[in-house]
Amino acid sequence: MSAFGFRHLGSDGRARLGEVSTAHGVIHTPAFMPVGTVGTVKAMTPESVASTGAEIILGNTYHLMLRPTAERVERFGGLHRFMNWPGPILTDSGGFQVMSLAKLRTMTEEGVTFQSHLDGSRHTLTPERSMEIQRMLDSDITMSFDECTAFPASEEVAATSMRLSMRWAKRSRAAFSERPGYGLFGIVQGSVYPELRAESVAALTDIGFHGYAVGGLAVGEGQEEMFRILDVTTPLLPEDRPRYLMGVGKPSDIVGSVMRGIDMFDCVMPTRSGRTGQAFTRRGPVNIRNARHQEDPRPLDEACGCPACRSYSRAYLHHLARAEEVLGLMLMTWHNLHYYQDLMRELRAAIAEGRLSRYAADFAALQAEGDIAPL
Amino acid sequence: MSAFGFRHLGSDGRARLGEVSTAHGVIHTPAFMPVGTVGTVKAMTPESVASTGAEIILGNTYHLMLRPTAERVERFGGLHRFMNWPGPILTDSGGFQVMSLAKLRTMTEEGVTFQSHLDGSRHTLTPERSMEIQRMLDSDITMSFDECTAFPASEEVAATSMRLSMRWAKRSRAAFSERPGYGLFGIVQGSVYPELRAESVAALTDIGFHGYAVGGLAVGEGQEEMFRILDVTTPLLPEDRPRYLMGVGKPSDIVGSVMRGIDMFDCVMPTRSGRTGQAFTRRGPVNIRNARHQEDPRPLDEACGCPACRSYSRAYLHHLARAEEVLGLMLMTWHNLHYYQDLMRELRAAIAEGRLSRYAADFAALQAEGDIAPL
Ligand SMILES: [Zn+2]
Ligand SMILES: [Zn+2]
Repeated sequence: MSAFGFRHLGSDGRARLGEVSTAHGVIHTPAFMPVGTVGTVKAMTPESVASTGAEIILGNTYHLMLRPTAERVERFGGLHRFMNWPGPILTDSGGFQVMSLAKLRTMTEEGVTFQSHLDGSRHTLTPERSMEIQRMLDSDITMSFDECTAFPASEEVAATSMRLSMRWAKRSRAAFSERPGYGLFGIVQGSVYPELRAESVAALTDIGFHGYAVGGLAVGEGQEEMFRILDVTTPLLPEDRPRYLMGVGKPSDIVGSVMRGIDMFDCVMPTRSGRTGQAFTRRGPVNIRNARHQEDPRPLDEACGCPACRSYSRAYLHHLARAEEVLGLMLMTWHNLHYYQDLMRELRAAIAEGRLSRYAADFAALQAEGDIAPL
Repeated sequence: MSAFGFRHLGSDGRARLGEVSTAHGVIHTPAFMPVGTVGTVKAMTPESVASTGAEIILGNTYHLMLRPTAERVERFGGLHRFMNWPGPILTDSGGFQVMSLAKLRTMTEEGVTFQSHLDGSRHTLTPERSMEIQRMLDSDITMSFDECTAFPASEEVAATSMRLSMRWAKRSRAAFSERPGYGLFGIVQGSVYPELRAESVAALTDIGFHGYAVGGLAVGEGQEEMFRILDVTTPLLPEDRPRYLMGVGKPSDIVGSVMRGIDMFDCVMPTRSGRTGQAFTRRGPVNIRNARHQEDPRPLDEACGCPACRSYSRAYLHHLARAEEVLGLMLMTWHNLHYYQDLMRELRAAIAEGRLSRYAADFAALQAEGDIAPL
C-alpha cells in the first residue's frame, strides 16, 4: 500500500493539476466527489457511479454512525466492502450535519451531544470520537472535527467559532491514527473575514495535515463573496497538499474555484437535482418536468455520452418525471453525475494544455446561451 | 420480418416447451413477462431487465393511453423506441385497469366510458379503440378487449359477463390489423364455472386467434381453485397456439400452471414486492426489513447470480431498505426478476429433459424448508 500523498503535476495560473494517492487508489484532480450519504450514492449502483468517471465518493459520518452504525460497518470490513465501492472514500466529520439535522444539541469545549433525528437516541461527537468513527468506516480521507460557522456571523462570533475548531483540529490530529495510504484534512474556518481565514490557515499548517479543506463557504454568502474569500485563502495554503472546497457547488462555482487553486469538491446538487427533475447541461440547467419537453425527441445534452443522453429522448425523461418513476431518478442522476465528471475531465485537460482561461470563457458563454430552442 | 407463430418443441406431461416468434424477436416458453406499466419496468433499466433473461415485457394500455398517450408514443415510433426496449412487448387491452383504477365508469354494449384517475379527463375504451391504441403502441402481442369478471360472481352474472367479452372478442378480431410478426390473443373468461370456460373457449376458437389467454383467475379464488379451472380449460385450447395465464403469480402458482399447460405469465409481484422489501428465493420469501438480517453477511439467495446476490450482503440490503434508499428498490427488484427468470429457465430445462415432476417436487420441498437459519 502506497503512502498518502499529493503530486502537483502542473499549473495554469493558480489552477492545479494533480494526483492524490490513497489506500484505495488514485484521484485525478481537480476532482468532484459524488455524495453517498448513508452508504449509497442515491439512485446509482457503484458500477454506474464509476462509469461516470468518479474516482472517489463521500460518506457522511453523522448518518452512518446512526445507521447502520460505524461498529457494524467495521465488522463488515469497512465502508468500501459494505457498500461495494472499491475506490477511495472521504468522510466528513459529522459536525456539519449534527448542526443541521440532529435535535437537542448541546455544544461544549469537549464536543457535541445530540439526539438522533431518526429515533431520538442520544449520542456524543467529539474530535476523538469522530476520528474513531471515521477509522471504523475505513475512510481514505478523514476530515477533522470542526464547527461550521453559521452565516452570517459577526467577526467576534466567527473568531470564537474558528478558534474552537482550531482546538478541535489539534485534538483531531492527535487522535488520528496514521496508516499508510490514509490522510487527515484540516478545515479552514473564519467566515468572510480574511484575517480570521489567515489565522485559521496558520493554526492548521502549524499542526500539519495531509490536506486542507476550506469550510464555511457556500452557506449563503453568494458566489462573489465565496470567490473573494478563496482569493485570500488558497494562496496561504501549502502548495504540496490537496485543497478541498467543502459542499461546492454549481458548475460555475467549480470552474471559478478551480481557477482559484481548489483541487477537490463535493456537492449534493447533481444527485439531489436529478431527483427533482433538474438537469445540468452544457447550456445551463434544464427542468425536464417542463411541458416544452413532452414531444422533444432530442437528448438532454447532445454533447453528453451518458446512458440517459445516448438512449433516451427528453420526451421520455419528461414522461418518467411526470409519472414519478424510479427510472427517472436513476437516469437524471446518472446524467448529472456524468456531466459533473465531464466538467472535471475538461478542466483537467484545459489546465494540462494551458488553456483554462479560454475554457472558462467558453463555458460561461455556452451556459449563458441557455437551453436549445424548443422545436 | 417473420410471421407471428408458435413452435411447440416438446412436452413433459401437459407442460410444453415452445418458442413464440414476434416482430421484435423470439420468446422461449414457458416465459415470465415483467410488468412495465407506464413504459418502464419500475426501478430497472431496459439493460438490467434484459440481463435477467427476460425476453418480453408487458405494457398497460390504460396507463399509457392517459400518459404519455398512445398518439405520442406512436409519433416516437412505438413503445419499443420510446422506452428503449428492443424486444417483444405484450400490451393488455385496458379493460382490467379501467375497472380497478378509473373513476365514474359507465359500461355499455359498446364499451366503457370513464374518467382518468390522473386528471379526471373523460375517455372511452371499446374493442375498436383498444385495438387502435395497441397498434399505435406497436405491441407485438395485442390482447382483445374484455371484461375481467369480478370474483366472486354467480353463474348467471359470470355467463352474462363472459358472453359480452366474447362479443367484444369478435369485434377485437375484426378491428385488429394483421401485420407480419404481430399477434392477437383472445381471453377465456367464465369465472370458476367449467361449462362457461368451455363455452368461452369454443367461442374464441371459432373466431380464431394467434394465442389464447386465461383471464379472470388469480382474483381471489385461491391456488387450488385456480388449478381446478386450469385443469378443465387448458385441455380445450388448441395445441398449436401459445397460452397465457394473466396476472399470475407466486412462484408456486407458476410451477403448477406450467404443469397444466400454460406457456406465458405476467405478474407485478417481483417488481412490487421488491419495492416493499420482500424477496423471492429458492427457500421461500424473505423480508429483508426484518431485524434478523442486520448483521447477516450472506447473500439473499446463495444460488442466485444476480448483482444483488453477487455483490451485496443481506445486512447491506437491510440497511438500504431501512434507510428507504432507491438503490434498495433497484437491487431487490433486480433480484426478484432474476429469480423469476431463473425459475423459468429451470422449468424449461426440466421439461426439455423430461424431469418436470421431480423438479416440481424439489422446488416445493426447498420452498417449504423456509429461509436459511440465522447466524
Ligand atoms: Zn447525459
Ligand atoms: Zn439474486
